[in-house]
Amino acid sequence: MRAAIFRHGNIVVDTIADPIPAAGQVLVKTLCCGICGSDLHVAKYPHQFVDVAQRSGRRWGMTLDRDVVFGHEFCCEIVELSRDTGTRLKPGAVVCSMPMTLAGTTVHGIGYSNDVAGGFAELMPLAERLLLEVPNGLPPAHAALTEPMAVGWHAVQQARLTPEDVPLVIGCGPVGLSVIAGLAIRDVHPIVAADFSPARRALALRMGADIVVDPAEVSPYASWHDAATPAGYDGSRYAQLFGLGPKQRPAVMFECVGVPGVIQQIMDGAPPWARIVVVGVCMEADRFEPFFGIVKQLNLQFVLGYSAEEFALSLHHIAQGRIDVAPLITGEVGLDGVKDAFSALANPERHAKIIVDPWR
Amino acid sequence: MRAAIFRHGNIVVDTIADPIPAAGQVLVKTLCCGICGSDLHVAKYPHQFVDVAQRSGRRWGMTLDRDVVFGHEFCCEIVELSRDTGTRLKPGAVVCSMPMTLAGTTVHGIGYSNDVAGGFAELMPLAERLLLEVPNGLPPAHAALTEPMAVGWHAVQQARLTPEDVPLVIGCGPVGLSVIAGLAIRDVHPIVAADFSPARRALALRMGADIVVDPAEVSPYASWHDAATPAGYDGSRYAQLFGLGPKQRPAVMFECVGVPGVIQQIMDGAPPWARIVVVGVCMEADRFEPFFGIVKQLNLQFVLGYSAEEFALSLHHIAQGRIDVAPLITGEVGLDGVKDAFSALANPERHAKIIVDPWR
Repeated sequence: MRAAIFRHGNIVVDTIADPIPAAGQVLVKTLCCGICGSDLHVAKYPHQFVDVAQRSGRRWGMTLDRDVVFGHEFCCEIVELSRDTGTRLKPGAVVCSMPMTLAGTTVHGIGYSNDVAGGFAELMPLAERLLLEVPNGLPPAHAALTEPMAVGWHAVQQARLTPEDVPLVIGCGPVGLSVIAGLAIRDVHPIVAADFSPARRALALRMGADIVVDPAEVSPYASWHDAATPAGYDGSRYAQLFGLGPKQRPAVMFECVGVPGVIQQIMDGAPPWARIVVVGVCMEADRFEPFFGIVKQLNLQFVLGYSAEEFALSLHHIAQGRIDVAPLITGEVGLDGVKDAFSALANPERHAKIIVDPWR
Repeated sequence: MRAAIFRHGNIVVDTIADPIPAAGQVLVKTLCCGICGSDLHVAKYPHQFVDVAQRSGRRWGMTLDRDVVFGHEFCCEIVELSRDTGTRLKPGAVVCSMPMTLAGTTVHGIGYSNDVAGGFAELMPLAERLLLEVPNGLPPAHAALTEPMAVGWHAVQQARLTPEDVPLVIGCGPVGLSVIAGLAIRDVHPIVAADFSPARRALALRMGADIVVDPAEVSPYASWHDAATPAGYDGSRYAQLFGLGPKQRPAVMFECVGVPGVIQQIMDGAPPWARIVVVGVCMEADRFEPFFGIVKQLNLQFVLGYSAEEFALSLHHIAQGRIDVAPLITGEVGLDGVKDAFSALANPERHAKIIVDPWR
């Protein structure tokens, strides 16, 4: 089969062996696969990723001396069932899966593995028991956004939301947009969102943000304050100590940038008792001042991925029209276009999500 | 009145003006005041404290060009009531208070203030409405430990404990010991605690720890793992994905050291989903790797101080014998001994808490 392969630090298109489905697996044809910001980061700093993944929990065991085929946001069509698969799905069915597969009791991640090719290849060996059938009529490109939408939904679930909360989303790339979509479903308003890019701010509004801010012009934290603070609020220590007057609404702030310095920036801008949900995937060492967290009694919840249930629900959110993912898709390429797409995604004015169709 | 004063970077004993109680205040005689680790840190790095306090929320407005009298862990005797005080407390009553006072609707912190002298002075102007009467017969030196015990109790309250949790306390100075005492009251066992000092480990056992570890010999995280992991536990991704077999008990880990590097060390040693409560007061910039938090979906709860209710309950915990603070008190000095006591407290084998009696 053909694949866009990460090999010796470059993306190259080449032919590799077709996967042979094991017991419990189905062979699928990749219809669509989104390019994730993590793919860009790993392609740019592969040694950093291998190092931090190894030191932090050995969850992704990929090495750089062998081929890796990225791609973990996919929608596929079943080509062939193997042994020990059930009867609920037939060849021709359109499916999604969390980006992992099972071989016996071994779990292989998909997307950063030397052993299993990801969605930038024509074929994949998926685990039948992890498959979700795509509801009739949902375009595969939309179904492929289940994975990034599940990331935001999971982050929102982990935020311990209350109806009083006023959320602030820092960064409106695909991760931030997915968080905004999750917040809109949970009906927690107003949703304040910040991004330097006008195009990203426009997308934030389409996904459900109520107030968008250009941090070059207005502090996102000042905007949050305006949105969360009732008339007559008295922030003095005396008023706080004795619970006098109207209360400021609680803060829940989502870090959706993933570069060093942003966590400290949020700890600096956040009000006392804020919950900060770290959704952006920073792979570098970072600097922060614990005292800022201490004085304000901040809570930092780091999140990653989603549960099987959250993943399934996200597919239904898209299928039921509760999230309109169409505006997020700003490009579609074949395997030969993957390398250029990695560069093109650096421009937030032009792109949010590029979908790869390996058969195009 | 006499006081041990922080002046131009030194502790000196001198005479300063007696406080004049304002409306709603009472004049008290300081019977006992504990020396806190923060006092030592601020005396050693005063500019760092002033800088970070200013930048992180302007809560302690002290400057270094004027005198400061430290001391925020005190027990006092009422000398004189002022205007607008109630009738519930009379001169001669023995009282505790959170370390703040009220002048009208202005709140003054006590302990790091240029305006109000703290407990290393003979007299203080306390707010009548914040006073708690010390139950009959409790020695003032024990009542003075209400404040540090409230710090640990608050940290434990903020930890969102469940009966399944297995706690790990990193650092058994007064803060860690106070956390252990709070955990013992909440009856969450086994309590695992780590400190390099044999004397501190012995105190940890007396305060309620079940397992103590010398990190020079055994990893606290390995000890936690042994305590939290049932026979037959299968940590493989397959078992975790499908919820197979016995579960590892949840981790709640208390950072009670307060120096750079410890937060990252805990993020490295913690299992997935651990809650980390940061109780140690680190005033320096720190380095951490967010990816460790992300991969394990860790939660960091920074805490500080206590509520009025938690403070009051801590006094009752001591008075009712639910916490035996006597072993923590390793020295008593007068004002002339404060300077040497600051040095002596550097030795964890010799000291935990030194009590200052300004009238001695």
